[in-house]
Amino acid sequence: MTKVDPWADIQGKVDYDKLIKEFGTEKLTDALLERLERDAKAKGLEFHHLLRRRIFFSHRDLKWVLDEYDKGHKFYLYTGRGPSGDIHLGHIVPWMLTKWLQDVYDVELWFQLTDDEKFLFKPELTLEDATRLAHENALDILAVGFDPKKTKIFIDTEYAATMYPLAIQIAKKLNFTTTKAVFGFTNDQNVGAIFYTAMQSVPCILPSVLAKRNIPCLIPYAIDQDAHFRVARDILPKLGFYKPAAIHCQFLPPLTGPGKMSTTGESKESTIFMSDDAKTIRKKVMRYAFSGGKDTVEEHRRHGGNADVDMAFQWLTYFEPDDKKLADIRRRYESGELLSGELKQILVDTIVPIILEHQRRRNDAKRTLLQVLLRDHKG
Amino acid sequence: MTKVDPWADIQGKVDYDKLIKEFGTEKLTDALLERLERDAKAKGLEFHHLLRRRIFFSHRDLKWVLDEYDKGHKFYLYTGRGPSGDIHLGHIVPWMLTKWLQDVYDVELWFQLTDDEKFLFKPELTLEDATRLAHENALDILAVGFDPKKTKIFIDTEYAATMYPLAIQIAKKLNFTTTKAVFGFTNDQNVGAIFYTAMQSVPCILPSVLAKRNIPCLIPYAIDQDAHFRVARDILPKLGFYKPAAIHCQFLPPLTGPGKMSTTGESKESTIFMSDDAKTIRKKVMRYAFSGGKDTVEEHRRHGGNADVDMAFQWLTYFEPDDKKLADIRRRYESGELLSGELKQILVDTIVPIILEHQRRRNDAKRTLLQVLLRDHKG
Repeated sequence: MTKVDPWADIQGKVDYDKLIKEFGTEKLTDALLERLERDAKAKGLEFHHLLRRRIFFSHRDLKWVLDEYDKGHKFYLYTGRGPSGDIHLGHIVPWMLTKWLQDVYDVELWFQLTDDEKFLFKPELTLEDATRLAHENALDILAVGFDPKKTKIFIDTEYAATMYPLAIQIAKKLNFTTTKAVFGFTNDQNVGAIFYTAMQSVPCILPSVLAKRNIPCLIPYAIDQDAHFRVARDILPKLGFYKPAAIHCQFLPPLTGPGKMSTTGESKESTIFMSDDAKTIRKKVMRYAFSGGKDTVEEHRRHGGNADVDMAFQWLTYFEPDDKKLADIRRRYESGELLSGELKQILVDTIVPIILEHQRRRNDAKRTLLQVLLRDHKG
Repeated sequence: MTKVDPWADIQGKVDYDKLIKEFGTEKLTDALLERLERDAKAKGLEFHHLLRRRIFFSHRDLKWVLDEYDKGHKFYLYTGRGPSGDIHLGHIVPWMLTKWLQDVYDVELWFQLTDDEKFLFKPELTLEDATRLAHENALDILAVGFDPKKTKIFIDTEYAATMYPLAIQIAKKLNFTTTKAVFGFTNDQNVGAIFYTAMQSVPCILPSVLAKRNIPCLIPYAIDQDAHFRVARDILPKLGFYKPAAIHCQFLPPLTGPGKMSTTGESKESTIFMSDDAKTIRKKVMRYAFSGGKDTVEEHRRHGGNADVDMAFQWLTYFEPDDKKLADIRRRYESGELLSGELKQILVDTIVPIILEHQRRRNDAKRTLLQVLLRDHKG
């Protein structure tokens, strides 16, 4: 299996059950899913398809966070992004569920933009560019539709007078031996990168520090970020804080086949960015989406397509919330009624509105950004 | 010889010539000293006795800094302190020359208080205490008499929104292998301590970054801090900045004998703090100052004392600026005219006014501090 860590380029099929064992997380149980569904229904909201379909598949301490919530002890959500290049559809997936969690539980979201990380781990990237990208990405975050009154966005380098004093308290409890073991660092690693994980742990405690009382933290993230939070869960109780809870999602695979979508190298061509126009999206889907259809129309009509390997269909499981509609598409595709090109067109018709709506909201977000952005003013 | 690095407890005689070779610095030449003297005289100021007596004994690129100055390209001074416990007379020594350099060259001083360093390297120290000590120490810095209009003091954790983005640019060029070699770190070192030297390098470039033009930097410091600046001199040119220049002083030895004065362990008893009252100072000098005198008054009168090992006399070389007076004291002591107790009394009469004046100015500094303290306001 391909290596899964915060900086690996993940290619090929990912064995998520194996990751649960390897990382020591827990599978999302039916009982937990039912509980989330109940909480959503109580708020008049649909149970989220990313949960129904187990695209969010794993967690840590989710039961505890919900128990605390039921006792009147609200959690907050924390998630983040390493700013780099354009936002693509794969980035949006965990944010979609994060927004849903904010809506269901009416909680704060603390969103970290790790310009320092990207700068320290990407040899050619300048800090100026990393910070600029962070500002760009902040608009995409707001475009997801988070409640601006309950959302705080911060860029590490701009919020360091607040974050650095907390980061060094975490760093004091973490030695190089551990970072070697957890992240696979060698002695050639730069000392900023070695320190960095402490900055990623800060939002697990920051709201508690500012509020001067412990607040449970729930972090929705793609499973590749897990190493940071294994470290955080080990250290933070030693500093008197709760272990952060987590809920983990699978990666949106590239259109071309299994793995994790990326904006670098060859796969860039086939990546669908949140800034793409309808025509570009259609072209990419038509050209690159790996098809589970048969070689000829005749054969396809006779034997039907294979939805399980067809990337257009796989993507619909991420972006088409209606279960009946999805089951119907599968049935028609597997019976041969629906051709590969037609299935791709259904995907295009599903994601184009999502992306265009994102673009509209991103444009509006320029006004909201200043209101949600936490910065240490320089003096 | 005892190990000399930023965190070693230095005991026993220090071979400063050997350090020049080991660290690759240069001895202060007669030509350079004459030049400093000329510049002082041109300003109507005395040539400083710490230079005359080669207590400042070594440098890097001092000639270059003075050449640039003569071309109209002013340098700035940078020095710092790791806040911990009370300030003692040994701490004041490099600051005395720093003030003189500020007066002679009419330049800015950037003074760093490294609360992060002390917290990261002292297992038992809390960050809260380190930061509190930094604020206390800031008053002692101002008490030295620096020009408040040309002096900026900053505490690392309070100025991190400004410093951290620069520190990571330095950190990206520094790997763990190098910090192991330079600082002797092992894999057990905490990741904050591994990162820290990048924070100590920041003031070597900070005024240049803020002014958007390269400004030469001259750092007066006790030679034990050299490792940090060897790293800085290697990295900063790769980022487009000048190598920082330096001028190095010897340690004020403990009253009890050779080495470096310390506030920890046994030597605390004999350490003279800037907060001591006249009676305490007298008691410490009388009790602890290692004497070069003879065992009996009769013997002493006949053979005289040994000024070269007598710590009261050695301390006078740091704090009695008048060469004639000092030579006269030596002559009288070596001839037996001056008894050990009388020599100690001379030292007491020399340092008590310095310390009382410091206390008076420290009290006044409370008003000035806000004016010179750089902080990133939190928002």
